Amino acid sequence: MKMFDKVAIVGTGLIGGSIALAIKKKNLCRQVIGISLHKKSLTLAKRIGAVDIGSLSLSAIKDADLVILAMPVSSIISLAPEISGLIKKNCLVFDVGSTKAKIVSKLSGLFPFFVGTHPLAGSEKRGIINACPDLFHNSLCIITPVNNTAAAAVAKVKKLWSFLGAKTIVMNPLQHDRILGFISHLPHVAAFSLMNSVPEEFLKFSPVSFKEATRVAASDSALWADIIIDNRENVLNAIKELQKNMNDIKSAIKKNNPAELARIFQKAKIRRGSLK
Amino acid sequence: MKMFDKVAIVGTGLIGGSIALAIKKKNLCRQVIGISLHKKSLTLAKRIGAVDIGSLSLSAIKDADLVILAMPVSSIISLAPEISGLIKKNCLVFDVGSTKAKIVSKLSGLFPFFVGTHPLAGSEKRGIINACPDLFHNSLCIITPVNNTAAAAVAKVKKLWSFLGAKTIVMNPLQHDRILGFISHLPHVAAFSLMNSVPEEFLKFSPVSFKEATRVAASDSALWADIIIDNRENVLNAIKELQKNMNDIKSAIKKNNPAELARIFQKAKIRRGSLK
Repeated sequence: MKMFDKVAIVGTGLIGGSIALAIKKKNLCRQVIGISLHKKSLTLAKRIGAVDIGSLSLSAIKDADLVILAMPVSSIISLAPEISGLIKKNCLVFDVGSTKAKIVSKLSGLFPFFVGTHPLAGSEKRGIINACPDLFHNSLCIITPVNNTAAAAVAKVKKLWSFLGAKTIVMNPLQHDRILGFISHLPHVAAFSLMNSVPEEFLKFSPVSFKEATRVAASDSALWADIIIDNRENVLNAIKELQKNMNDIKSAIKKNNPAELARIFQKAKIRRGSLK
Repeated sequence: MKMFDKVAIVGTGLIGGSIALAIKKKNLCRQVIGISLHKKSLTLAKRIGAVDIGSLSLSAIKDADLVILAMPVSSIISLAPEISGLIKKNCLVFDVGSTKAKIVSKLSGLFPFFVGTHPLAGSEKRGIINACPDLFHNSLCIITPVNNTAAAAVAKVKKLWSFLGAKTIVMNPLQHDRILGFISHLPHVAAFSLMNSVPEEFLKFSPVSFKEATRVAASDSALWADIIIDNRENVLNAIKELQKNMNDIKSAIKKNNPAELARIFQKAKIRRGSLK
């Protein structure tokens, strides 16, 4: 079923490339146009059939009836004014940035039909080379409309994400950023910190548990610096909570009190057990 | 190839049960005796063919030519004197505790043929119900002899662990505890802390990365309180390092400095890349 005629995806990395592959697989539009700063990414996107046309220039979005912004958070914000001057009237626009408050606040004023979204998929890997049409299968995609978001635009974006395999959930952008600060940005900060804490000569003994705990420390540094700076107040608040909880453990250890320590661990165990 | 006549395993949990299954599979002895406080564990151990005889009493170890101590760290230390009065002369004894300095120091004085070992295998799961003969395949087992450890005992224990599929490495018990404080105990402290930091109503949105980062928070609370209290100085030192590294991140965020943050993340990314 064709939902769109031309879809333009700005940023053909892991997420943009996977959306392109999924749209192609589901036959949801006539043509996919990929825009990237990197010629190699476009060449590969064409070779694997993710896009029909690749362009190094933003102007290629001009005839699209859907534009998907799949760049790093700071590029979405910085390129939005230029993009808003290029798109055709009635063009639907959504982004896939990992933070929502600033993006939605800025882009809602620039585009008549803009919807903020955040697919909770992806990995520490990046680039079209790791793209996969099934990346969003059984994942959660958070949709963050605001008061002036057109209801028809929200409905269409939700429908598209459902076709891509994601379960959608609607949430306020501020609440999104508060939650993600805890469940995504904080674990990244913890993984980066853990990785930097261990003396290098000990790393060769790492058990599976350490590798798992630090997997996301292999994520792209600039991309994550960007996300965390964008959401800094929530992340600082989440770090404060983590430090408080770590200090409670430290204090029980210092008191040489295994029962108190076991109580703290048991609370964590019960919470962990509630995760599906 | 039968290395032993009778092997007694004290503690038929995940590790003890898996050793029993692996010994049986490789046909390394004539008879395996399982000792546990829990009748259910012994019944199951017999049913799955992990042990030939199950006993609720330590006295069952009396004819064994190998005794494996697979109990929690504090039980290894507290039961060692009683066990040393029960074993036959020349009996080889090794433990599988997650900490080594205190255990090796105490047990080396109690048993003429004692070797400390620590298989870096296992998971957040526990009990004979999760035991598996292949648990140690391609894992690392740290062997911690000291000056008065009999060389023949070390050789035999290394050989046994190799038959069970583990690569063995010899290390000083103090060095073992220092390393494990960083690569195993610290990530557990981080996972327990992370789990307790996140507001409960946010947990339902947890992405895969959060679930992975907190997997070990589902570990047995008392067992881990025991390990961390036993290794408290090293763990406190490791926590201090983690807090220092987390404060560096916090400071870059507060300065609103994405370049500094990216440099910290990049250092972690390179270290993470060095892990196999």
